[in-house]
Amino acid sequence: MNKVAAIIGAGVIGGGWAARFRMTGWQVRLYDPSPDAVAQIERVYQNALASVPQLVDGAMPAEGELVVCGSVEEAVSGATWIQESVPERLEIKQSVFREIQTHCSEDATIGSSTSGFMPSQLQADALRPEQIVVTHPYNPVYLLPLVELVPGAPVSAARIEQAKAILGEIGMHAVHIKKEIDAHVGDRLLEALWREALWLVSDGIATTGEIDDIMTHSFGMRWAQMGLFDTYRVAGGQAGMRHFMEQFGPCLTWPWTKLMDVPEFNDKLVSTIVSQSDAQSGHLTISEMEQIRDRNLVGFLKVLKDNDWAAGKMFNQWLADAPKPVSQVALDQPLALHSARVLPSWVDYNGHMTEFRYSQVLTNASDAILEFVGMDKAYIDTGFSYYTVESHIRHLGECKLNETLTVHSQLIAADDKRMHVYHSIQNERGEEVVTGEHMMLHVDRAANKACPVNEPMKSRLAALLAAQADLPKPTALGRFVGAPR
Amino acid sequence: MNKVAAIIGAGVIGGGWAARFRMTGWQVRLYDPSPDAVAQIERVYQNALASVPQLVDGAMPAEGELVVCGSVEEAVSGATWIQESVPERLEIKQSVFREIQTHCSEDATIGSSTSGFMPSQLQADALRPEQIVVTHPYNPVYLLPLVELVPGAPVSAARIEQAKAILGEIGMHAVHIKKEIDAHVGDRLLEALWREALWLVSDGIATTGEIDDIMTHSFGMRWAQMGLFDTYRVAGGQAGMRHFMEQFGPCLTWPWTKLMDVPEFNDKLVSTIVSQSDAQSGHLTISEMEQIRDRNLVGFLKVLKDNDWAAGKMFNQWLADAPKPVSQVALDQPLALHSARVLPSWVDYNGHMTEFRYSQVLTNASDAILEFVGMDKAYIDTGFSYYTVESHIRHLGECKLNETLTVHSQLIAADDKRMHVYHSIQNERGEEVVTGEHMMLHVDRAANKACPVNEPMKSRLAALLAAQADLPKPTALGRFVGAPR
Repeated sequence: MNKVAAIIGAGVIGGGWAARFRMTGWQVRLYDPSPDAVAQIERVYQNALASVPQLVDGAMPAEGELVVCGSVEEAVSGATWIQESVPERLEIKQSVFREIQTHCSEDATIGSSTSGFMPSQLQADALRPEQIVVTHPYNPVYLLPLVELVPGAPVSAARIEQAKAILGEIGMHAVHIKKEIDAHVGDRLLEALWREALWLVSDGIATTGEIDDIMTHSFGMRWAQMGLFDTYRVAGGQAGMRHFMEQFGPCLTWPWTKLMDVPEFNDKLVSTIVSQSDAQSGHLTISEMEQIRDRNLVGFLKVLKDNDWAAGKMFNQWLADAPKPVSQVALDQPLALHSARVLPSWVDYNGHMTEFRYSQVLTNASDAILEFVGMDKAYIDTGFSYYTVESHIRHLGECKLNETLTVHSQLIAADDKRMHVYHSIQNERGEEVVTGEHMMLHVDRAANKACPVNEPMKSRLAALLAAQADLPKPTALGRFVGAPR
Repeated sequence: MNKVAAIIGAGVIGGGWAARFRMTGWQVRLYDPSPDAVAQIERVYQNALASVPQLVDGAMPAEGELVVCGSVEEAVSGATWIQESVPERLEIKQSVFREIQTHCSEDATIGSSTSGFMPSQLQADALRPEQIVVTHPYNPVYLLPLVELVPGAPVSAARIEQAKAILGEIGMHAVHIKKEIDAHVGDRLLEALWREALWLVSDGIATTGEIDDIMTHSFGMRWAQMGLFDTYRVAGGQAGMRHFMEQFGPCLTWPWTKLMDVPEFNDKLVSTIVSQSDAQSGHLTISEMEQIRDRNLVGFLKVLKDNDWAAGKMFNQWLADAPKPVSQVALDQPLALHSARVLPSWVDYNGHMTEFRYSQVLTNASDAILEFVGMDKAYIDTGFSYYTVESHIRHLGECKLNETLTVHSQLIAADDKRMHVYHSIQNERGEEVVTGEHMMLHVDRAANKACPVNEPMKSRLAALLAAQADLPKPTALGRFVGAPR
């Protein structure tokens, strides 16, 4: 199975799919007849590049190539995955499927981004219905990991499993929806809430800005981490879900919502909403709002990763499963084991990198050396660790947002308990911006005192020390604060 | 106006209100006849204490007292704010209001936590209808800052403004809903989505766990930071909200949702939901889920604070407006200008504080000294700043989760460009756990080179240096990494 994905239709959704595939090392073959297609794909990809790498502590996978194609045939021939994201009109989609299936491999899977149509509608009149599934994502596709996977009757269990595996490979959580239904699951929930919101605006109860404030300051935050049912499970208290249902059930027949009725969708309602929305957010461009949104979503995903929960748990699993880049390390040179990009949150009010973030980079570099010489989770679990007891840090230059910093690390000395390391943080032009000199002590954590290092770290440390013995010693070694230069 | 709040009804919601008032320095007078009331209030308060302080970088306001009262009369007499959170039955609420109004001041405001009743229903038969407003919060009340403030007709504009001010003082964003309606705004939206979700479960389209996954991995995260309308505004792309409405409007008449119909709320549906929810989350206790939820919400609120957006923007405003604790500083002693609690995210895989977090505390302590000698935003805006050029850090002891660290800072030397400071980080027992020695340089940011410090900082630095001249010099001054001890 090759890692080639054809993207048919290059709107915001198609662009998001393309970004996911490229960022996980797939070749992306793009077909969209629109003259704006390539610019649009590139714009979405830049948004993805500005956000997704912040979630990956180490190096990103090698980037996949983008190939702009002149026809559906060129895009889909030999592709493993074909993602259709053309306008939401059934006759257009069916015609695109016929063209795709004329040229694509029978083994390929064709995913449709449709938000509304059922797979049986898409599969009707298809050359090979068993090849077409609904794979409905959420915008921004490069950050939100959800796919509703709706295969419908003709699709084999093997193909469903393969589709889930491929979606998993590009970092997406596929929820397999076993019964087809108009608009699947998520958009039905959205539609219900949207309709009620339109009533509230139409009846003058609240403005679009007030409704949005109410959502973002209350249940929106809850739903980013526990859905409707888990939230109500907690609300039921120690008595649990049955208690909640018994309390809340009767409300269903209360005349609360206007669900039974559809608001008239006329020019007056449209104008009211447009003008309220302009008053609410017209001071921001759509691009600015996208950037704000992505910064917030990255932050939430980091929180969920740290807590190993919901979308963050899924992301951690993806990171653990992703193939690691193999680093070729020459032992007789300073080791370049840790790189980091200067992230927006690292930059202070002077527009420069905040002091303690250098310390963070140095800490991560020390951790990388320790891991390199064998301090893995198994070693730590035996009850030992290295603690840093002393550091000397020199600030020699400045870093800018988005620069990539690489740490070059030298082992100065190591005995059975102590490890003396020297880090040089360099920017992309090879300029030294910070140096760090650190003394670490091997510690028995339970006894909370220094103790000799164990195998295999002992031998690996000795080998590294021997290999680096002939390297010139850094001139700043042994400096103290305020020493003459 | 005294800072006394009466809490009538001590469930999860009443407990949340009590926590908000106490944490912002209000005396809380509790009345609830249930034998579990005090334990429940204390349990919620412990949850609040475990989460809210993580959002406040500096010191929390002085804590308010909890007074457990034996009667409504005792609780409400002389209180400025009275919050009713008794069971959701109109006749109970009306009877409680009559008892409250028999004893409370006419100036007090009575807020009701009702999720469903309109103010006119609550005000009917009241002694003074103009005193009663709906103030509907969201669980967990101590973290989610939203209140729907629905006053109804008899309430004066002055009282509405005063209510908003008091809610603002306890860190809440009151959305004033000008037309009363059953269930206000938020719960109508929740009800619409809930009803659709029940259909999806009832019809076997998706399980509770699948629905929750779909929500948390997609639109839940979106709604934590932009509501329905802002999200769709972005979805409309550069063409904006009108374009989105024109695209999406026609869908309102599509037969997507089952909004027109109410699912039969019978034992079978309840059992299906209870058993699916148990399968989804039965491995966690409700207390565990509350703690996970609060950890996630704190994380999201931190992200939104960092981005100064939505609920985080509101929180930043609250922090800026909150009265600052006045510190009495003796210049001839090491200055204790910065304290920090060891937060959960600061603790590493060894169960100890991560190395770079000490650097963060030291950086914040240096910033506190700079601010103390006059480097405020106005000074920075003139184009000058101090940069740290060199640091020496010693790790002498360990810190545990939730310990409060205090930095004692000494000015060692200062000339027209350089500032040499020494920090001692001490734990609650006065033990020195880390020392930091730092050389900072006064810089012209535009020219990017060192330059002489300006007034008023120059004089203030000289005064501080003179005052601290007789302090003994720290013995570790001028140490280098690996120097003999």
